[in-house]
Amino acid sequence: MEGFFFPRTPTGRSSIVPSPPWHYSGEMITVEYRTHPDRVAEMLPEGAELAEDDPGAVALIWADWQSCGDDFSELLDPYKSQYKECFAVIRCRWDDRDWSRSPFIWVDKDFALVRGYHQGYPKKLGDIWMTRPVTVGRAGPRLEPGGRFGATLTVAGRRIAEAVVTLTEPAPSPGFVNAHPMLHDRRWPAIESDGSMAVDEMVTMRGYDGEVADVWAGEAQLDVFDSPWDELAYLEPLEIIGGYYHRVGVSWRQGTTLRK
Amino acid sequence: MEGFFFPRTPTGRSSIVPSPPWHYSGEMITVEYRTHPDRVAEMLPEGAELAEDDPGAVALIWADWQSCGDDFSELLDPYKSQYKECFAVIRCRWDDRDWSRSPFIWVDKDFALVRGYHQGYPKKLGDIWMTRPVTVGRAGPRLEPGGRFGATLTVAGRRIAEAVVTLTEPAPSPGFVNAHPMLHDRRWPAIESDGSMAVDEMVTMRGYDGEVADVWAGEAQLDVFDSPWDELAYLEPLEIIGGYYHRVGVSWRQGTTLRK
Amino acid sequence: MEGFFFPRTPTGRSSIVPSPPWHYSGEMITVEYRTHPDRVAEMLPEGAELAEDDPGAVALIWADWQSCGDDFSELLDPYKSQYKECFAVIRCRWDDRDWSRSPFIWVDKDFALVRGYHQGYPKKLGDIWMTRPVTVGRAGPRLEPGGRFGATLTVAGRRIAEAVVTLTEPAPSPGFVNAHPMLHDRRWPAIESDGSMAVDEMVTMRGYDGEVADVWAGEAQLDVFDSPWDELAYLEPLEIIGGYYHRVGVSWRQGTTLRK
Amino acid sequence: MEGFFFPRTPTGRSSIVPSPPWHYSGEMITVEYRTHPDRVAEMLPEGAELAEDDPGAVALIWADWQSCGDDFSELLDPYKSQYKECFAVIRCRWDDRDWSRSPFIWVDKDFALVRGYHQGYPKKLGDIWMTRPVTVGRAGPRLEPGGRFGATLTVAGRRIAEAVVTLTEPAPSPGFVNAHPMLHDRRWPAIESDGSMAVDEMVTMRGYDGEVADVWAGEAQLDVFDSPWDELAYLEPLEIIGGYYHRVGVSWRQGTTLRK
Repeated sequence: MEGFFFPRTPTGRSSIVPSPPWHYSGEMITVEYRTHPDRVAEMLPEGAELAEDDPGAVALIWADWQSCGDDFSELLDPYKSQYKECFAVIRCRWDDRDWSRSPFIWVDKDFALVRGYHQGYPKKLGDIWMTRPVTVGRAGPRLEPGGRFGATLTVAGRRIAEAVVTLTEPAPSPGFVNAHPMLHDRRWPAIESDGSMAVDEMVTMRGYDGEVADVWAGEAQLDVFDSPWDELAYLEPLEIIGGYYHRVGVSWRQGTTLRK
Repeated sequence: MEGFFFPRTPTGRSSIVPSPPWHYSGEMITVEYRTHPDRVAEMLPEGAELAEDDPGAVALIWADWQSCGDDFSELLDPYKSQYKECFAVIRCRWDDRDWSRSPFIWVDKDFALVRGYHQGYPKKLGDIWMTRPVTVGRAGPRLEPGGRFGATLTVAGRRIAEAVVTLTEPAPSPGFVNAHPMLHDRRWPAIESDGSMAVDEMVTMRGYDGEVADVWAGEAQLDVFDSPWDELAYLEPLEIIGGYYHRVGVSWRQGTTLRK
Repeated sequence: MEGFFFPRTPTGRSSIVPSPPWHYSGEMITVEYRTHPDRVAEMLPEGAELAEDDPGAVALIWADWQSCGDDFSELLDPYKSQYKECFAVIRCRWDDRDWSRSPFIWVDKDFALVRGYHQGYPKKLGDIWMTRPVTVGRAGPRLEPGGRFGATLTVAGRRIAEAVVTLTEPAPSPGFVNAHPMLHDRRWPAIESDGSMAVDEMVTMRGYDGEVADVWAGEAQLDVFDSPWDELAYLEPLEIIGGYYHRVGVSWRQGTTLRK
Repeated sequence: MEGFFFPRTPTGRSSIVPSPPWHYSGEMITVEYRTHPDRVAEMLPEGAELAEDDPGAVALIWADWQSCGDDFSELLDPYKSQYKECFAVIRCRWDDRDWSRSPFIWVDKDFALVRGYHQGYPKKLGDIWMTRPVTVGRAGPRLEPGGRFGATLTVAGRRIAEAVVTLTEPAPSPGFVNAHPMLHDRRWPAIESDGSMAVDEMVTMRGYDGEVADVWAGEAQLDVFDSPWDELAYLEPLEIIGGYYHRVGVSWRQGTTLRK
């Protein structure tokens, strides 16, 4: 039975995600802001500490992706390659290094969900929308000063976050919060469902062949709303740091288990 | 009670579509092909005749749009501005002029559906996917020779059409079938539901301030599938003419009633 | 070219809605409440007046339907027969008679949208969810005192309404607001988009062969939320009248034009 | 950090699935058929053998569920409790016992997806539709001889399966294929993505407090279609055994690891 993932079959082509490497090209709208540092601390894995500088910094990032495996077949059946996501990123210090970490993340396709589980992202499904820049016509912003982008997240029928970023100038990088290798948990309960874990790992991973382009900084507004089922608002914005637009290309092959 | 469209309220802001003008920016993947001319003829309004040249020509066009009204407010809540569509276009001769006409069209948002009813497009809902060109990373084609784009249409849970366009070279225009003013019917049955019509009009309309960019020609493959509920396959492809990618911006303000 | 509705083709089977009669079987959760009578008055057609008794009464009704045309073919492809809706109903007095009228309504399928336009309902798309009663297991209420039902409406990514109805006892009827023939407008702007109307009718319609079953009354909670795009909250609940669950079967053949 | 599942937070309420026990109430349409026994054998875990009687038997089951955790809170926000699924079941012999096993399964909500991963079901997202029985009106079958039910499955924009079951008579049980404890794999690759596994378990599980009601047998038709991404058609129907409708209630608390 073949297949990097389930369902495994004689051919392997039913696998919900093909074998790595995986390739990604997309565009992102980022809002960086400060929340209560103690709430960031609560979201860290055991043994990790708050980042020393700007410990309450959070990035909320919307992304509109195309992705595929190494035979690129998904690209011609774009239902299988396109997805959108919205994710929060915080930072921490562990083992004398700085790490990024995603405590909340929503996507809109199943392959992205499971690919995330492989990488330690705590993904759920959500409805994600982002304004796209245009080069012709009047129905969209240009990548130029004053260009305005909206981004929204709805989960289980409730609006969870909405942002507006107004571009001011090209920038060298799209923020500092999502800039480190990721420090994630991969925890799956034992089927005995008694509190024991079948997997309980701390892992890290990072892409390769990353390219960024069209990086713009801007002013940002952000509203985050509570829900009985989703607690992004626990990391409520107290102060906006800034907003960004950029394009990114990256590939991913593997991660590393740091601790079991 | 205010509102260009229902539901009408004291403020008018519930209207499913705001007052024109409407602005559009998007990208399109087009496949032009030849079908049975007599089937094209059957889809024409009374009194119209087949185009003299290439009477069986059909364009099947996928589009990924941002659109908005004249206050541009939808652009910051992109659920309300973004939609995709797939539509067939045929041509005809009527009143000594050449016209384009859409016998089948699917979109994925309600505002696009009703805006289309206003313009005489026979819209239904469908799931529409199109490969997007990229400028960074490996997960998508570049706008360059060899760039390959897929496009699919699923309606009521059945795949109806799928296409692949492989770019060969820049082109002066994205095809000839969707190039004329539209000749559409607007027909709404009387509520008596006895065969009489409350509206029975032949109308035409065309955008203004049109801009095209990044027009590429290419080779195309197209498969069209039958469904009990959707008859795009009645206009089955017998011979491919060609494929195109392009970006377009356009605005729309009004049409003209040609015949009641 | 055949078809009760577009797209019209030689066979007629592409029509987004088949010819009447149409048959419906479903279940409904209703909350009746009082809002500002003057706001109800603003939603009435010209010449109509508030109902004399309880002029601010509104029903907000969630429905989970199966529907089909007279050959029943949709029932075996349930994507084409099942849909959910949520609609507000108010009452008025016109021409010495009492009428019901729907100022806001959301559905989740295109055929229901267009069938509604035929009948004068100002439909938009929305995401509608309703608790279902069960007869086995623990994951749902029984139709018995204390059975609790939830109902929610999300439109364009925003929660618009949510209700809970707790059954108290069987009831003779599921409320009084949606009890009269409907008084609706059918208004479609001229394609000239200059404020003139291609259709501007006042119509009425009512089903036949109606059956109700399992009618229960109960206590209700209701929250309604504002949105930039949807104004159900303009008819905000000031006082709850009551809640209901019931099943209904009905057929529909035609309406009557009251005024052009 | 609390939560039976991710995302884990101080409150635990973000968990995509609450702690067991989980309760389910639903209705099912089942088609049992025979496929190539050697293909069934290929889908079995290492060491398991074909069932001795009717080794090529498969059940394809559509289910429309309400489910919830032990505080029943999801029932009042039915987006969080309702989902549909379609799954194939085969049987095998292992360790001197008979087992059922699901090689393919699709659901339409994220909580059902992850709950399935916990239990070893190889879930993907799909669009699932099932005719519902009615008790009033004409838009649906009754639970009586001649009642006809349709069921469809669309995955990634392609129709994968469609069935029709016509009821003939009440039956003592809804088939024999899905009648044993489940024998599932739980396999998650190591993040090193080098072919090693972080979890590789054979598990079993079964519900408790099961109730069935309204069990009907019938005649069945079934068509299964191939897709580049989904191989249900590998278990193609060669001969129909029969069809069933029934309602079921069940709870689930835990499973057992059989082998690591």
